[in-house]
Amino acid sequence: MSKYHGYAAMEAGQALQPYSYDPGPLADDQVEIDVIACGLCHSDVSMIDNEWGASKYPIVGGHEIIGRVSAKGPLVSNVEIGQTVGVGWLSGSCQNCGSCVSGSQHHCRNAAATIIRREGGFANKVRAQSLWTIPLPEGLDPQKAGPLFCGGITVFSPFVDFQISPTDKIAVVGIGGLGHLALKFANAWGCEVTAFTSSMDKRDELLKLGAHHVVNSKDNDAIKALKGRFDLVLSTVNVNLPWYHFLSALAPRGRLVQVGIVTEPMAVPTFSIITGQKSVSGSDTGSPSTIAKMLQFCARHKIEPQVEFFPMTEINSAIEHLKSGKARYRIVLTND
Amino acid sequence: MSKYHGYAAMEAGQALQPYSYDPGPLADDQVEIDVIACGLCHSDVSMIDNEWGASKYPIVGGHEIIGRVSAKGPLVSNVEIGQTVGVGWLSGSCQNCGSCVSGSQHHCRNAAATIIRREGGFANKVRAQSLWTIPLPEGLDPQKAGPLFCGGITVFSPFVDFQISPTDKIAVVGIGGLGHLALKFANAWGCEVTAFTSSMDKRDELLKLGAHHVVNSKDNDAIKALKGRFDLVLSTVNVNLPWYHFLSALAPRGRLVQVGIVTEPMAVPTFSIITGQKSVSGSDTGSPSTIAKMLQFCARHKIEPQVEFFPMTEINSAIEHLKSGKARYRIVLTND
Repeated sequence: MSKYHGYAAMEAGQALQPYSYDPGPLADDQVEIDVIACGLCHSDVSMIDNEWGASKYPIVGGHEIIGRVSAKGPLVSNVEIGQTVGVGWLSGSCQNCGSCVSGSQHHCRNAAATIIRREGGFANKVRAQSLWTIPLPEGLDPQKAGPLFCGGITVFSPFVDFQISPTDKIAVVGIGGLGHLALKFANAWGCEVTAFTSSMDKRDELLKLGAHHVVNSKDNDAIKALKGRFDLVLSTVNVNLPWYHFLSALAPRGRLVQVGIVTEPMAVPTFSIITGQKSVSGSDTGSPSTIAKMLQFCARHKIEPQVEFFPMTEINSAIEHLKSGKARYRIVLTND
Repeated sequence: MSKYHGYAAMEAGQALQPYSYDPGPLADDQVEIDVIACGLCHSDVSMIDNEWGASKYPIVGGHEIIGRVSAKGPLVSNVEIGQTVGVGWLSGSCQNCGSCVSGSQHHCRNAAATIIRREGGFANKVRAQSLWTIPLPEGLDPQKAGPLFCGGITVFSPFVDFQISPTDKIAVVGIGGLGHLALKFANAWGCEVTAFTSSMDKRDELLKLGAHHVVNSKDNDAIKALKGRFDLVLSTVNVNLPWYHFLSALAPRGRLVQVGIVTEPMAVPTFSIITGQKSVSGSDTGSPSTIAKMLQFCARHKIEPQVEFFPMTEINSAIEHLKSGKARYRIVLTND
C-alpha cells in the first residue's frame, strides 16, 4: 500500500507542512477516496490549534471532503469505484449501539471523527466507513459541495430533527460559513427568514441569500421589538450573546438552537424558558440518512455553498484568510 | 352583590389577615365558586412576599382551588350550578390571540393569573373564566385534588407537550409538592423512574410514590455514573445545580425540563447540549384541555396529591410549615 500525502500541523498552532503517512490495510467496511476538494471549517483550525484540548500531533485536518472512490472493502455495497462521494465530520460508527441501530449513527458514543486520531481530507487520499461515504447526487458541483458535509448538515439537521414547518418563522444568528447555508435552507424550506448579523453592510447580500429581513444582532432594542416572533432561532455564533433577548424573541414553544461551540456556558434565565415553554437545544452533525436527504434537497432547490477556492498547496494562506473573518462564505481547497 | 371574605397580606412579608372585598358584577363568561379547599403553593408565598416584584397589595393568594359553582354568567355552558370544579394558576385568557385559538390558552400573552391583580382562593369565594373552570371527574377527592391544578399540571404538561413515551427513562429532581406528583405521573405513564433527592432518608417513601431508583442529588459521582441514561430529567428545584452533570446523564436527544424558577440564570455549556443534540426546556402550567386530560388520568390511575390539611383560619401556621420545608408533600387549606 502506497503512502498518503497530506498537510499536517506538527504542533499546536504551527503552519501546516507536507506530511506523508501509511494508511495501513483498508478495512472490510471502508472506502478509499481520491480527494477532489475539501472545505476548510473553523473546527479544523480549532483542532490544529488544539483549542478543545483533544488534538494529537501530527494532525491532518479536513472534514468537508468530496472525492472519487478509488478502492473499497468487500463489505461495501453502497458505492462503486469511480463514484463521486462526500465525507463529513464523522467517518465511522460502531453500527451496534442503540443510536446506530435506530438510525442516529451520529450519536454513536464511539463514533470516529474524521480528523481526531486519524488523518482527514487535507490530503490526496482519505478513508471512511462506507456508511459515512455518501454519494453525491446529480446536479451538485463536486468542487463546491464539500461544505455541505459539515457546515451544511449542521444547520440542516435542526430543520429535520426539530420538525420545522414551512409555516414557521426562522431567525439565523451569525451569517458565515454555516449561517449563509442556513438562510438558503430556511428559504427553500418555505419559512419566513430573518438574518441577524453584526455586519449590516452585508444586508443586500443576505437578502439575496434568502433572508426576508435583516436585523443588527448588536441592536438590543431591535431584538426586543421582535418579542414572541420566531419559532426557531438558529445561532451559529461562537460567542455568548444576551440570550434572554433572543429567548424573548421566541414564540410560545419556540426553540433556540445553538450549533456554535462557546467556551463559556450560555446563561439561560429560567423565567425566559418557563414562560411560553421554550427550549434551548444544541445540535451537531447529522445521520447519514439526513445527509443524503440534505443533498437531494440541495440538488432539487439548486442550493450550493458560496465558496472561495484555494489550491491545496496554499492551505496556509487559506487558513489565514479564514482567521481574518473575510471568507465569503466558505473556503474550499482543491487538488490538481 | 355581597362581599367576598378572604385572607390578605397588606404588605410584602406580613402575616395574612382577614380581608373583605367587593368582587363587582359577574362577567358574562365568568363562574363564581364557593371554595371548598385550596392548596398552598410556593408561588403563593413568593407573591405574598413580593419575591418576583410583581405583587400589588393587599394580595389574596390561593390558586389550587376546588369549589362548587354558585353562580355563572350567561355565556357559560361547560359547568352547572352546584358542580364541583377546580381552578389553577390561570383564570382567564383572551380567546382571540393565536395561542388561544390554537388551544394553547396558557400561552396567551394577556392571560390572567389567579392571584395577580385579582383575589385568589384563600377566601370563601373566587371567580374564574368558564374556560379555566374545570369540572372535577368522579373518583377524585375534592379535599385533596386542589394541588393538581398548579403543582400537578406543571409536572404533567411536560409528559404531554414533550411527547414522553412509556418506554422513556425519567428522572425527577427535587421531591416536594411538584416532584412527588411527577413520580406518580411518570410511574403511571409506564416509564422507568429515578428520583433525585437531597434527603436520602426519604428513600423508602419515594419508592412507594413510584420511583424505581433513588439517587442522592448532591452525589456528583453517582450522577456521573448515570451518563447517557435519561430521556427526560424533570427538575422541580428552585436553586441552580451543576446542570452539566444532569445534561451528561441525558441520552442523545434527551431533555432537561426546568419547572422551578431560579433567580440566577442556569449555566448551560454548549458542548453539553451540542453533543447528542440535547435540550433545556422550561414549562409552566398547562392548557385547559391538558388539565382535563390530567384529571381523567389521575382518576383512572388513582393518583392524588399526598397532602396535609390546615383549616383556612390557620393559614399563617400553614405558611410557616411550608417555609420550614417539612410539608409532606403539599398543604391544603380547607373551609368549614
